Amino acid sequence: MLKNITEAQLKNMTLKELIALCEEAREVITKTVLNNGGHLSSNLGTVELTVALHYVFDFPEDKLIFDVGHQCYTHKLLTGRYDKFNTIRQKDGISGFPKREESLFDCYDTGHAGTSVSAALGIAKARDIKGEKFNVIALIGDGSFNNGLIYEAFNSLRLLNTNVLLILNDNGMSIAPTVGSMHEYLEILSEDMQHKSKVDRHAKIFERFGFGYDGVYDGNDLEVMINKLTEVRERIKKESVILHVLTKKGKGYSFCEDDPESTHGIAKNNQPVQFNEYSQVLGKTLTRLAAKNDRIVAVTAAMTSSLGLSEFFEKYPDRSVDVGICEEHATILCASMATEGMKPYYAVYSTFLQRSFDEIVIDICEQNLPVTLCIDRAGVSGADGETHQGVFDLSFLSFIPNLTIAVPKDLNEFEKMIEFSEGFNAPLAIRYPREGKRFFGACEKIACGKWEKLAEGDGKYAILACGERAVTQAFAAAEELKAQGVSVTIINARFVKPLDTVMLGGLQEKFILTVEDNMLAGGFGSVVNGYFIGGNKILKNFAYADEFIPQGSVSELMQERNLSGRAITEFIKSNENR
Amino acid sequence: MLKNITEAQLKNMTLKELIALCEEAREVITKTVLNNGGHLSSNLGTVELTVALHYVFDFPEDKLIFDVGHQCYTHKLLTGRYDKFNTIRQKDGISGFPKREESLFDCYDTGHAGTSVSAALGIAKARDIKGEKFNVIALIGDGSFNNGLIYEAFNSLRLLNTNVLLILNDNGMSIAPTVGSMHEYLEILSEDMQHKSKVDRHAKIFERFGFGYDGVYDGNDLEVMINKLTEVRERIKKESVILHVLTKKGKGYSFCEDDPESTHGIAKNNQPVQFNEYSQVLGKTLTRLAAKNDRIVAVTAAMTSSLGLSEFFEKYPDRSVDVGICEEHATILCASMATEGMKPYYAVYSTFLQRSFDEIVIDICEQNLPVTLCIDRAGVSGADGETHQGVFDLSFLSFIPNLTIAVPKDLNEFEKMIEFSEGFNAPLAIRYPREGKRFFGACEKIACGKWEKLAEGDGKYAILACGERAVTQAFAAAEELKAQGVSVTIINARFVKPLDTVMLGGLQEKFILTVEDNMLAGGFGSVVNGYFIGGNKILKNFAYADEFIPQGSVSELMQERNLSGRAITEFIKSNENR
Repeated sequence: MLKNITEAQLKNMTLKELIALCEEAREVITKTVLNNGGHLSSNLGTVELTVALHYVFDFPEDKLIFDVGHQCYTHKLLTGRYDKFNTIRQKDGISGFPKREESLFDCYDTGHAGTSVSAALGIAKARDIKGEKFNVIALIGDGSFNNGLIYEAFNSLRLLNTNVLLILNDNGMSIAPTVGSMHEYLEILSEDMQHKSKVDRHAKIFERFGFGYDGVYDGNDLEVMINKLTEVRERIKKESVILHVLTKKGKGYSFCEDDPESTHGIAKNNQPVQFNEYSQVLGKTLTRLAAKNDRIVAVTAAMTSSLGLSEFFEKYPDRSVDVGICEEHATILCASMATEGMKPYYAVYSTFLQRSFDEIVIDICEQNLPVTLCIDRAGVSGADGETHQGVFDLSFLSFIPNLTIAVPKDLNEFEKMIEFSEGFNAPLAIRYPREGKRFFGACEKIACGKWEKLAEGDGKYAILACGERAVTQAFAAAEELKAQGVSVTIINARFVKPLDTVMLGGLQEKFILTVEDNMLAGGFGSVVNGYFIGGNKILKNFAYADEFIPQGSVSELMQERNLSGRAITEFIKSNENR
Repeated sequence: MLKNITEAQLKNMTLKELIALCEEAREVITKTVLNNGGHLSSNLGTVELTVALHYVFDFPEDKLIFDVGHQCYTHKLLTGRYDKFNTIRQKDGISGFPKREESLFDCYDTGHAGTSVSAALGIAKARDIKGEKFNVIALIGDGSFNNGLIYEAFNSLRLLNTNVLLILNDNGMSIAPTVGSMHEYLEILSEDMQHKSKVDRHAKIFERFGFGYDGVYDGNDLEVMINKLTEVRERIKKESVILHVLTKKGKGYSFCEDDPESTHGIAKNNQPVQFNEYSQVLGKTLTRLAAKNDRIVAVTAAMTSSLGLSEFFEKYPDRSVDVGICEEHATILCASMATEGMKPYYAVYSTFLQRSFDEIVIDICEQNLPVTLCIDRAGVSGADGETHQGVFDLSFLSFIPNLTIAVPKDLNEFEKMIEFSEGFNAPLAIRYPREGKRFFGACEKIACGKWEKLAEGDGKYAILACGERAVTQAFAAAEELKAQGVSVTIINARFVKPLDTVMLGGLQEKFILTVEDNMLAGGFGSVVNGYFIGGNKILKNFAYADEFIPQGSVSELMQERNLSGRAITEFIKSNENR
């Protein structure tokens, strides 16, 4: 039934048919995600809710915004993307997130947490200004509900004087179990719902902000969902409403129901989630150091396990903080703990560190505090696409005064850098990709701003490679070139700030090539270019051009953008007669 | 009494003496601020509160964090800075904000809103880890209380399992009157206090997050404040407490009490607040365009009047939104309104735009939406110092795909740029300083990425000047050089992204000088350097080096950092024999 289904057909189905439709959607999602990778349990939990929304509301006239977007697969299946669904998260396929470019039914792109309520209010406000009448719905999980943006949006509801429907999909988890006082409050409300009591009394918080409140205890019961949404559709003509829906993450697939955390994200071909070797080294090293140093504290924002910190959190609960999806708050906690002599490590994905930009500048760097930013999933991150690529961090960090930026060439060196960080008494950022190898041999002791020469060439070309992916490509090029009688110098540029000006100043090579898994503008290459301004070197930068990078595998994305041994080799060969 | 007062002396004073001390502090603050400029009414409102805090608590063992810091003057007077107080906000003088470098009594630097609760929690958590016992107090105004960081901090209170005292200084204003649902809620609580009724019932929101709640109706009554703080000091041994204190902004100085908004910030020598010519042009132009274009919307975050938008807000209330100090939310409101065909303008100070970095990348630019960022107070901003300099914006914007960045050379051109923006269907940032002149004559029509040549030289030197301050210095240099027989080309580089590669490619000059009121790293000069990589030009960048810039007048700060006609002249003269 799902194939080529239209909104009109769906609305004409009987309840029995709709339930069968849900089962079919669940099956397609499970099969596809086990094959392609993607977000499984979050999508399984919201099948009935999504079908009910499409049954009750009129999309695309009505607008549906998915917070983060980990719950949008059923919506994609219902809105003309059944045939392409097997391409989800593949290169040139459909996105795993809502994308305006992909469908009229996707009205707002998401990817980072907490934006949906603000977006719903903006769309509703525009509707009111234009004198139109459609409904605006934000669907948000309880994990995102911790983010400060929610409060900012709530605070302006009455100001904006507009009506939206906010569906709070509460499964008690973000990726990890949800934490925090708001979560505890939602649990109280859930219990009230179960006992059909006191809900009105406890729901006052939302009412204070101008929302009506209603709840659905079994959000996986399609009939109940349809009835409640039908009722609420009338109510939001007069006021904004929060509909608190309890769903079961991973519903219908026992493997997920039993272990929703590790089935939140699934890797390709039913393999366990990809290894994250750098994260593991972070966790092991910090745990080891913390045994002897009681000032070490680890802070995360709802990503403890993916960041490799589970063991640390188990061993040192008093020195571990997971604040939920609150990246700004996490950053300030680190800065302020550092003022009291603690040694805080904030571990975070590169893309989510963007939320902390102001706090990195003002709270950490202006105060020159010894916080270490452990920036995971740096560089292109693969199948999540545009909203999750970690390719901006060197650009948004490299101009901040007082900040030192380190980039390890392999896991050995990463471990040494963490050891180095322990005694480093100023702001430090270490950025690294997901996958890693103990590849380039034992590494000398880390000293701030000191690079190392990994290969000595014949004096014409020097490749300055920043990070493991870049060093790997530099070696790939060197090998190919060697067969052709060209020998290149390879330098492990393990600090982006400060540059190793001693080594730079000593380079005799005419051609200086930089390689980095980051944007060209403002990145490592741009800093090196600045150093050589006015000299007579020939400079060539391998980095990402000025565009958002779509989904694909890491190697596909890098190859296509000439961040490859092949591209380096070709550049050098084309210059052999110069 | 104030001069050289110690904590011990203050604690031995009688109530009468303490009241006299308050009056003296009020007098010194008023006199100094009317002379030096600074934050007047916010500081006058919190004199008693601050004296009471110093009477009851033991600083610097106990820690006091000022949110934003507009309320710290009395604290500075009480903690060894009486003698230097006349240097406040002057070059090389004491700061108008809390600064750890300045005093042991300043435990956390602030400047941007909403950070104090997170910082208090971090400091308290560090205290607990270390097994120490001091008290941690955050003092926050009701304006900052709108910021999402507050919610993130509240949400983690129970998680962190620590105790702090949060003093909510409620005067009903931030700079402008406070807006939003939280403010309305605080008003309900204030009424309860007045009638000594129902407070417990209404204060449930705070209790949900794990705070005890108490209130003081007259926060300017010293005796009441002392008694309440004494009581609360015991209570926070067992739980975190929000103490909601009502104060009168501008208390004790009728000029301020009557008009707390325009006396929030005072310019030097009792002049009215400095002119902000660019803001005025923004307001006038947008108001004019909005008369014919009903899609134009203006959004601000608690700065409407300072951004020149009062008239717009009065004329078009339905298309005006001030969300309070919620920069991230404001940014998403703009992006989402744009998805519905609106033409949103988000006006904001450069330094506060830092809070929106992630939303600029993900919500505006990834979706390629026609939002215009009107970035006011760009470049060094003067007396507020390190936390308020607008010198990072070109660096954190210039690598974002899909974004166009424009920088006007004068007010005429700014007006033309706003007109240009109306028909520009993609993300656009326009950055400008506070002060401006209609100086450089009529300006040609703006075309995206097109620069203009303002002066043709004798072919050796080209100055690429970005923005009015830079163009002004370029002309100053040109004039001086002319007297010495050197004639330079001056180019108005009014787009930082995209560059005018046609004009750049046609430059015959050997020496290319860039001038900008921004960091060197990642800024305009760095982008130009990237263009010329591999060529044979001699490049010289005039921009800010890698350090936080302290307070001073705009011209002092620029001169000292060689952003001046003088420095340009000297560079050129030193190259006359090359």
